[in-house]
Amino acid sequence: MNWQEIKAGIHPLDAQAMEQAAQYQHALVKPAGSLGMLEKISIQIAGITGQVKNSADKKAHYLFGADNGVYAEGIAASPQEFTRLLMGFYSQGVNCGITVLCRQHNVDLYNIDMGIIGEVQGDIRRIKLMPNGTNNLAKEPAMPRDIAEQAVETGFNFVKEAIDCGYNLISTGEVGMGNTTTAAACIKAALQDYDLHCGVGRGAGLTDEAYARKKQVISDALAMHRPDPNDFLDILSKVGGLDIAAMCGMFIGAAYYRIPIVIDGVIAISAALLAYRFQPLTKDFMIPSHVSEEPAYQLASQAMDLKPLLLLDMRLGEGSGCPIAMGIVEDALAIINQMNTFEEIELATDYREGIKA
Amino acid sequence: MNWQEIKAGIHPLDAQAMEQAAQYQHALVKPAGSLGMLEKISIQIAGITGQVKNSADKKAHYLFGADNGVYAEGIAASPQEFTRLLMGFYSQGVNCGITVLCRQHNVDLYNIDMGIIGEVQGDIRRIKLMPNGTNNLAKEPAMPRDIAEQAVETGFNFVKEAIDCGYNLISTGEVGMGNTTTAAACIKAALQDYDLHCGVGRGAGLTDEAYARKKQVISDALAMHRPDPNDFLDILSKVGGLDIAAMCGMFIGAAYYRIPIVIDGVIAISAALLAYRFQPLTKDFMIPSHVSEEPAYQLASQAMDLKPLLLLDMRLGEGSGCPIAMGIVEDALAIINQMNTFEEIELATDYREGIKA
Repeated sequence: MNWQEIKAGIHPLDAQAMEQAAQYQHALVKPAGSLGMLEKISIQIAGITGQVKNSADKKAHYLFGADNGVYAEGIAASPQEFTRLLMGFYSQGVNCGITVLCRQHNVDLYNIDMGIIGEVQGDIRRIKLMPNGTNNLAKEPAMPRDIAEQAVETGFNFVKEAIDCGYNLISTGEVGMGNTTTAAACIKAALQDYDLHCGVGRGAGLTDEAYARKKQVISDALAMHRPDPNDFLDILSKVGGLDIAAMCGMFIGAAYYRIPIVIDGVIAISAALLAYRFQPLTKDFMIPSHVSEEPAYQLASQAMDLKPLLLLDMRLGEGSGCPIAMGIVEDALAIINQMNTFEEIELATDYREGIKA
Repeated sequence: MNWQEIKAGIHPLDAQAMEQAAQYQHALVKPAGSLGMLEKISIQIAGITGQVKNSADKKAHYLFGADNGVYAEGIAASPQEFTRLLMGFYSQGVNCGITVLCRQHNVDLYNIDMGIIGEVQGDIRRIKLMPNGTNNLAKEPAMPRDIAEQAVETGFNFVKEAIDCGYNLISTGEVGMGNTTTAAACIKAALQDYDLHCGVGRGAGLTDEAYARKKQVISDALAMHRPDPNDFLDILSKVGGLDIAAMCGMFIGAAYYRIPIVIDGVIAISAALLAYRFQPLTKDFMIPSHVSEEPAYQLASQAMDLKPLLLLDMRLGEGSGCPIAMGIVEDALAIINQMNTFEEIELATDYREGIKA
């Protein structure tokens, strides 16, 4: 892919549509700004589509699975084959967190095998750029640069497909043992924050010893590979994962093809931060879902000045906060689409000024 | 009403049902606790109903309107007749914030005139305990004690009606010019926190001068009336409002009749705090919706140790955060009702232990 062309093909939010949406929000029967984030989301989406009124009636969630060579360093608590096992659940219709929440919010779920060790049965797209997962980033670069590029391209192309299928709101999640390690490494690389103790969380159920090892592995890998903070493909290939790369491609694609995309937890935000490093305008197309307790999440969300909507204390992965946040987006669009204006209810001007105060 | 009997008739959450729900959450195909508040809400509701699986498929929002005599002190920015005007919008089907969000989440909206100056047309219950609103609490008690009692009883009885209609999730909101003043006064009285500058917010669009006056009015009224912090009816009658009293009755009724009830902003939480003062067990039946910026909200939520679910920066009133939070409650119940257990997918024990870790 020609990344310079793609970078140049990402344009800012439509300022005129946003101004119109903001003015229209002012004309609705409520004090200006009193619906807070519901107003801001509607104005952001107007900037994305160029229209004041929008829908989020067709929604898709892309769930990427990938294995990580760094698992060999003992930085994850669960058996490595859980990547394949859990992905099998999603693709074979077991009622997991993400499948139940997608059904609840009428979101279509797409499962993608980016490089899971072994074979996953069921409803899944098999991309498998590295059939045995990535290399061990503690010893060598996680993947060749051209593989990182293909993984990003895969996510990018899924956005095009989503648009062609008529989706108007998308999101992305992941499964992959060891991926809070790759996510933290990507975030630290992108922020040039190599402090050992800052920004690395415990992930799921690590012992003190494994947690110390995880921090050391990340620190050593960054010192060894020295990824270029301004080159997202260099970061991805050296310390990333195939899931993060594909998600990064989706964030870039969402901005390029102009569709709102929901970010979930620490893995998703690491991918979002790499997209942001590639082209800061990508940020304007993202809607963060819930506050994550992972310290690397806090670093990345602060760096991008993203404000999550939900305080649900969730840490399941799978992008499970996304369908819930999509419900809030639908609320925001219902407000701008359905609320009456002062004009429509023929309210005298002096009354209007009072309510708007 | 015999308050002692009602107080004694409120029983704790069903510990056995909660334990069963917690164990069932442990049996679902996810790491224990990884769905955070979604799990906690499902366990709380099990404690309310005594059953592990529950529904929130029939939902009602009770919106109380009332005028406040303290308006005469110049503590509110909008014309007083806005109470009647806005209530008229809701009851005549204008698409306001609360009407759109109730429709979006399939919540039935009930409008109640507790004491609005003038006549409200449309679909509204006319209780009107004080047809001209309350007295000016800066000069005299806001209402006679027996009126406060009747207002609480009104809210209490609405919960009985809701149960009889088959509702399984309720919430409450308000409209009434000047009611951030009565709410702050009630919260300060209940917490015995009479510091002038702490806990009083600007409400909607006050000038610096009016804001200073609002703080002084609250401080002087508390010094003059000295409401008994252990007597919620004394607080309500001296510095409360008819809307707050009715909402307080709903929070007591929700605990007495055992149905989950959503709390919204600062007015609702003042009513919740008075219910909590009457009987601390009422708290266990409440589900807070969004974080409010009003400082009195922070005081009350800290006092009750309530953790809101949403960060939406909303300040519309009407209980507009409630339908959104009800959507989260439905998500929580979908998880416990629909997710598969390890048993159901016949997962070997060693796998289970790994996932649960």
